Amino acid sequence: MLKLNSTNKPLLPKGVGTFFPERAAKKKKIEEIILTTFSKWGFQDIVTPGFEFLDVLSEGLDEELIDKSYKFIDRGTGRILALRPDITAQIARIAAASYTEKPKPLRLSYRTNVFRYEEEHAGREQEIFQVGGELIGADLPESDAEMVAIAVESLRETGLNNFEIAMGQIGFFKGMLTSAGLDSSTYIKVKDAFSKKEMLRVEELLSGISKTQRNKLLKIADLFGSEEILDKAEAIADNKESKKAVQNIRDVYKMLKLYGLDKYILIDLAEVRGFDYYTGILFEVFVKGIGYEIGSGGRYDSLLAKFGFDCPSTGFAFDVERLIAAVDAQDIELKTDGVNILLIDFNKDKSAAIKLAKTLRDNGYNVARDIIKRDLNSSLNYANEWGIPTAVVIGTKDLKMDEALIIDTKTNEKRTIKINQLSELKI
Amino acid sequence: MLKLNSTNKPLLPKGVGTFFPERAAKKKKIEEIILTTFSKWGFQDIVTPGFEFLDVLSEGLDEELIDKSYKFIDRGTGRILALRPDITAQIARIAAASYTEKPKPLRLSYRTNVFRYEEEHAGREQEIFQVGGELIGADLPESDAEMVAIAVESLRETGLNNFEIAMGQIGFFKGMLTSAGLDSSTYIKVKDAFSKKEMLRVEELLSGISKTQRNKLLKIADLFGSEEILDKAEAIADNKESKKAVQNIRDVYKMLKLYGLDKYILIDLAEVRGFDYYTGILFEVFVKGIGYEIGSGGRYDSLLAKFGFDCPSTGFAFDVERLIAAVDAQDIELKTDGVNILLIDFNKDKSAAIKLAKTLRDNGYNVARDIIKRDLNSSLNYANEWGIPTAVVIGTKDLKMDEALIIDTKTNEKRTIKINQLSELKI
Repeated sequence: MLKLNSTNKPLLPKGVGTFFPERAAKKKKIEEIILTTFSKWGFQDIVTPGFEFLDVLSEGLDEELIDKSYKFIDRGTGRILALRPDITAQIARIAAASYTEKPKPLRLSYRTNVFRYEEEHAGREQEIFQVGGELIGADLPESDAEMVAIAVESLRETGLNNFEIAMGQIGFFKGMLTSAGLDSSTYIKVKDAFSKKEMLRVEELLSGISKTQRNKLLKIADLFGSEEILDKAEAIADNKESKKAVQNIRDVYKMLKLYGLDKYILIDLAEVRGFDYYTGILFEVFVKGIGYEIGSGGRYDSLLAKFGFDCPSTGFAFDVERLIAAVDAQDIELKTDGVNILLIDFNKDKSAAIKLAKTLRDNGYNVARDIIKRDLNSSLNYANEWGIPTAVVIGTKDLKMDEALIIDTKTNEKRTIKINQLSELKI
Repeated sequence: MLKLNSTNKPLLPKGVGTFFPERAAKKKKIEEIILTTFSKWGFQDIVTPGFEFLDVLSEGLDEELIDKSYKFIDRGTGRILALRPDITAQIARIAAASYTEKPKPLRLSYRTNVFRYEEEHAGREQEIFQVGGELIGADLPESDAEMVAIAVESLRETGLNNFEIAMGQIGFFKGMLTSAGLDSSTYIKVKDAFSKKEMLRVEELLSGISKTQRNKLLKIADLFGSEEILDKAEAIADNKESKKAVQNIRDVYKMLKLYGLDKYILIDLAEVRGFDYYTGILFEVFVKGIGYEIGSGGRYDSLLAKFGFDCPSTGFAFDVERLIAAVDAQDIELKTDGVNILLIDFNKDKSAAIKLAKTLRDNGYNVARDIIKRDLNSSLNYANEWGIPTAVVIGTKDLKMDEALIIDTKTNEKRTIKINQLSELKI
């Protein structure tokens, strides 16, 4: 027998945990809201395998994500398996394997978990719950705008307000750095420093280029704000890729204006975070009260080609636990299903209780029967401890055969009603 | 770049796979039906970690399940992690760690995946999708009956008919074998042979005991049928444990009669399959047209004690893929959400299309916008390929500004209606 807590070893690995009922209900509700929004926009769910062969999936993964993957040997084949570290790469693989012939676009949504090894001190989750979607086979600004619009609609549906979408276009940054003559290894370092807003490090990394060039690149850090930023960006864009990127983000922004969503958008050309597979528009979702992004996405036009199918795509995902934190931070009460009624029955013959429970359930109530023999106070204590708002009592001496006692378990307020009126019970 | 199919190596490990949209929608619908049934009966969802420390979880796992677990080293601690092979053991661990003080019973439901290594030739899934529940802290026959009743209600809600619950009580078998003087290693072998209905092997394993004893044990194989079986079982029960087991299954059966569910029950005292942690009532769900059980469960009164909390419990789970197979085998059409409308727009200004899409979505339709520029026939072909039943077309030369063309994408039947009447569209 294991004596829990008798050892100093932790019971659970860091970064994984249990969703107890209250939080599990929030998780479920939030996932439903987002997936319903996706399906309203024409998306259909897909479910991908929990693990895959690393040599297959790694084609679509950043080095960092390959490092962070949980790996183990497949006993049958001796090949290395990886616990799903990212679902976009999986969906790209699946689209390349099964959807080359189907007319485009594909609109695929998902709810999933991904696993990433994190150092203990990083304090990050190792099992991450995501809900998101991929729009595959369309490179028009409309498709990028659609993803942002779905993100905003989802947030609105949860009841969140005070949120902001930081939208960038990685092509602008890439073009500027390439045009300044930086090699790809320096590019990666500068991008990393930029994404962390470590501007002193950026300056240092750029010490090899001319002052004029360097100053131009450093200016990118200030390119965030409203639409006027795009004019400033255009003014410093000295190459075709960056100019194209500015035009692209302008087109997407125009679409978002048509959607009436421009008020949520912060254009941010210094927004360069995220996976290496992003090639165009990218965005992150921020909510007041939470100091990190709760969702992110972007365009990845080269990812499917790595699996043998050249096809432009875009997508995004919410981090469900972060979304729960955001909802909690804004004191939003999600309407979740709980237990409505505890049915307490003092009859010897259980027929009446079974029948009554069925009637109440058929009328839409969630009914727990108090199957343990105990006195009324213990039963009411049980209801209270589990947050069940109403107790319906039958079979006590004081009640007639056709009567039930309704008790508000919080206030202890009582009323007696006829059982055949219970189906119209307003609770 | 990975050239898919350019190698003979399989792309995916055996026993894991993708749920493409049609099947994913069935999975989701079935999970919703079962979880809704559980919540109607007062259960609340719980979500457990995807992996745990093996030394912790293995306290609640059969040897076989420990063997079948996918194991890997935790980089941070060097301890062995196991990908969740069973959720009942996890919930038992959680209840023992967090719910000792809360009044009982706990009613916890879940949708999850579990991972079990299977030899390739076994043809079994390695990622198994389950929906189920645990009723913890009650040992009354009512609680066993409740689990069976929820299983039946769930099946009815999916629309399945022609199903049967084979219900046994492991205590009867255990008592008979113990009373015959068999040691625990022989017990395990006989149980295994019995569960596979390998009666010749059973006879062989029992060769050491008297012929009278042996014949009595062999008779257990015939103890399946309706209520009268219980009298036969009582007649051969020669020990306290077996007698108690017969009385227990009699009490549960009586409750199921009150529920009006006895017609679904096959009493089967030779039903000895399942995990070693079962201690009382156990049951398996069979559906006409499927040659294996699609769900199973039972009482496990000693499991929580292994985690330091002595507490009786019962539970069961459906295998979701098997339930999909059952639904398919009985030609049941589940009402799943699909895309209802493809909105095709030939206007240059996208405002009208965006507005119309919003109106239709607000009216409950799932609307995909055809964002790729192409001719009407290509768009209709797209709708057909993706099973979208209706196309709504705006902005062609033949249509007035306030008109839309409605096309049945299967029959190509067309009608023109006013856009402001579209919200009342019956499709």
